[in-house]
Amino acid sequence: MAKKPLPILDLNAFAFDQGTVPDKALAELIKRRYKTQGPTSMLFYQEPLHIVRGQGTWLYDSKGTKYLDVYNNVPCLGHCHPKVVEAVSQQLSQLNVHSRYLHDTVHIYTEKLLATLPDNIDRLVMTCTGSESNDLALRLARTTTQKKGIIVSEVAYHGNTQMVTEVSPSSFKTQAPPEYVMTVPVAEVTHRGDGAADWFADQVYSAIQTLNDRGFGCAALLVDPIFSSDGIYSDPPGFLNKAVEIVHEHGGLFIADEVQSGFARTGDCMWGFQRHNVVPDIITMGKPMGNGYPVAGVASRLDLLEALCQEVGYFNTFGGSTTAAAAGLAVLNVIEEEGMLENSRQVGAYLKLGLHELQDQNHCIAEIRGAGLYIGLEFSEDGDVNRPDVDKATATLNLLRRDQVLVGTVGKYGNVLKIRPPLCFTRDNADLFLNKLGKVLKELS
Amino acid sequence: MAKKPLPILDLNAFAFDQGTVPDKALAELIKRRYKTQGPTSMLFYQEPLHIVRGQGTWLYDSKGTKYLDVYNNVPCLGHCHPKVVEAVSQQLSQLNVHSRYLHDTVHIYTEKLLATLPDNIDRLVMTCTGSESNDLALRLARTTTQKKGIIVSEVAYHGNTQMVTEVSPSSFKTQAPPEYVMTVPVAEVTHRGDGAADWFADQVYSAIQTLNDRGFGCAALLVDPIFSSDGIYSDPPGFLNKAVEIVHEHGGLFIADEVQSGFARTGDCMWGFQRHNVVPDIITMGKPMGNGYPVAGVASRLDLLEALCQEVGYFNTFGGSTTAAAAGLAVLNVIEEEGMLENSRQVGAYLKLGLHELQDQNHCIAEIRGAGLYIGLEFSEDGDVNRPDVDKATATLNLLRRDQVLVGTVGKYGNVLKIRPPLCFTRDNADLFLNKLGKVLKELS
Repeated sequence: MAKKPLPILDLNAFAFDQGTVPDKALAELIKRRYKTQGPTSMLFYQEPLHIVRGQGTWLYDSKGTKYLDVYNNVPCLGHCHPKVVEAVSQQLSQLNVHSRYLHDTVHIYTEKLLATLPDNIDRLVMTCTGSESNDLALRLARTTTQKKGIIVSEVAYHGNTQMVTEVSPSSFKTQAPPEYVMTVPVAEVTHRGDGAADWFADQVYSAIQTLNDRGFGCAALLVDPIFSSDGIYSDPPGFLNKAVEIVHEHGGLFIADEVQSGFARTGDCMWGFQRHNVVPDIITMGKPMGNGYPVAGVASRLDLLEALCQEVGYFNTFGGSTTAAAAGLAVLNVIEEEGMLENSRQVGAYLKLGLHELQDQNHCIAEIRGAGLYIGLEFSEDGDVNRPDVDKATATLNLLRRDQVLVGTVGKYGNVLKIRPPLCFTRDNADLFLNKLGKVLKELS
Repeated sequence: MAKKPLPILDLNAFAFDQGTVPDKALAELIKRRYKTQGPTSMLFYQEPLHIVRGQGTWLYDSKGTKYLDVYNNVPCLGHCHPKVVEAVSQQLSQLNVHSRYLHDTVHIYTEKLLATLPDNIDRLVMTCTGSESNDLALRLARTTTQKKGIIVSEVAYHGNTQMVTEVSPSSFKTQAPPEYVMTVPVAEVTHRGDGAADWFADQVYSAIQTLNDRGFGCAALLVDPIFSSDGIYSDPPGFLNKAVEIVHEHGGLFIADEVQSGFARTGDCMWGFQRHNVVPDIITMGKPMGNGYPVAGVASRLDLLEALCQEVGYFNTFGGSTTAAAAGLAVLNVIEEEGMLENSRQVGAYLKLGLHELQDQNHCIAEIRGAGLYIGLEFSEDGDVNRPDVDKATATLNLLRRDQVLVGTVGKYGNVLKIRPPLCFTRDNADLFLNKLGKVLKELS
């Protein structure tokens, strides 16, 4: 029996009202935090971390203890990558201003980024966050199609604005998304083999029918192409393509939310949608785009932007600033120069191999999914995917933290270990992680 | 007769489809811009600027021409303020990570910022942009009051998300805000003397009645306390207080959008609402908060945050990052150390005096409004506020740009010159500005 779904955002949260920590300095910081930031201020782990320094794949706490970072994708090139730090610092000291003046770096960056995308995607709107990007994308889709319905995956998370929260079922704690939102399951794709694309297309088709019945029509299918919050569903590659065809046939658009799967993360290609052999109408980007400097964007087509701009004005103060462009450009350059895509592919494959070896020894691991350096490890009782073991996933997470390794959890039941290190993760890092994970699993067995 | 209102965001825009510029290099950059960014990418001035460097109150173009910046409030301490550049660069090289780990700077900053606010405001949620802040504020208000209606000023602009655009009448080009939004006029306050607060309260009361009649109720009155996009209405101080009382009496909340009027801008106090002797329930912040580094926030009360968090999760990846906190802290420190509030008050008063002298010689200036370093100069035919002269305002703006002085325009008709320099603006800067403005007005007379 599946356990009751938990709110996805709370799975790895320190409980302010219940948690206690032995370290007095830490307890004091936690108290100050609650007293000034309050309930939105979630802290990771049963014993939160007091981090003071980061470098590459390592984070250091206030006592000098070092942690292997197998979680953070925002510093995609590694913490404090010197080339990004230098580019941003340099630009900050020279000119940090909005995009209403012309500036070369902004144009060099825009052209370089668009060159990585399909030919039909010819315009970039820079924003500041992935939430802003998805918020704008939904408006572009609705204005262009003159329809309202949105299809997302069952446990989707697309950001934090009002509109984007409405299409993020994982954010709801008590109620459900509004009626114009239809969710589709995704987990089954893993077990459908050659029939995966047809099966997923059927789910989407059924959702379109419901949206039509409700009078909304389907404005867009919006998905994270690696379905991270659902529990990381990457395979078989191509399982999205028939669903996208059906959405197009019914006058809807396809929005690829590349906040998670973009920027070489999946190892196979620069963008997650490319693994599925589909061409989006809108591509949204965020998190890793500036290696930690707030940079985000919406890539789309001229006709979509024109449709929106006839109705309303759009301007983003921090979006496309000279410094945002400098940060973004440095990230693209380093991905190329340091072979991050290839590293993501190779080390990702190596890591997966090691995880499969651990699976052979541990029946609690039901499935290993993912691509490149985005891997999910599903914990289930006796390896049965129908009996999710959230307790084991949570225990593993916190024991790994004790053993100086940082990961997260995701999925409908929170029973999937989220393995998503910076892209500079090495084989040595992978060995260390596998070794520590192996020990923790033994301890828990 | 008042001219037809123009979309506020377009008033100072270069027209891609009509504009031509003599400089070939500039024309080439403009072409690249349109081909890769498209219609959302607004450029300032009939002849756009190619800016390459900024320092203090100065911006420099690619030919080395220097411009006096009398417009930009994001670099509130001056372009590339060395202490902020250093603080941000230092933090970027040490640790740039989200807020799910504990970090001292984040807490030092939160406490320092909250200490500038009324006692009832005891919690800070850090976001990334003013738009995200207002989006969250509206949700806090609605969840807490269980009402939907929002009252804003007639030409309000509060940001760019779907929800915040809905409460930004100035963003609409063809349609009007939805029915749950009521707008109130503000311009009259200037002419009502002691009766200003009563008059404005009457407008708000009437809006509440309409919202009640429509079944929405009033969740919040949301205003920028200096009413910048409406045309800058600062006086008489206190004109907001009775309206806020009435909103509270009817179970609504008061949201002060301090994105424009906060951080010492008005010269009288740190926050715009303080000039009106009112205590908000929610305070939103943005633009100047990090002197250009993307930092924003929502300050509110524990009970409001708890109400929202019971329904949905909220997390902001870039909000409250170690670097955002370092940037914000440096800004607060420099405001104190360099006496920015006092400078805003003194130089603002000096500037206003000089503008009044110009008004004596130029009948086209109907009114001078504003506080501190946020001043509006209203152009009207023969000084009659009922005959807005948008052509003269636009001509003045573009001639000032020719003469190396940068300002903007705002207001319902776009006939108000927006004078809003960095807070380090000096008396010498003011003299230069007044001198050049005087010459332009003479040329136009």
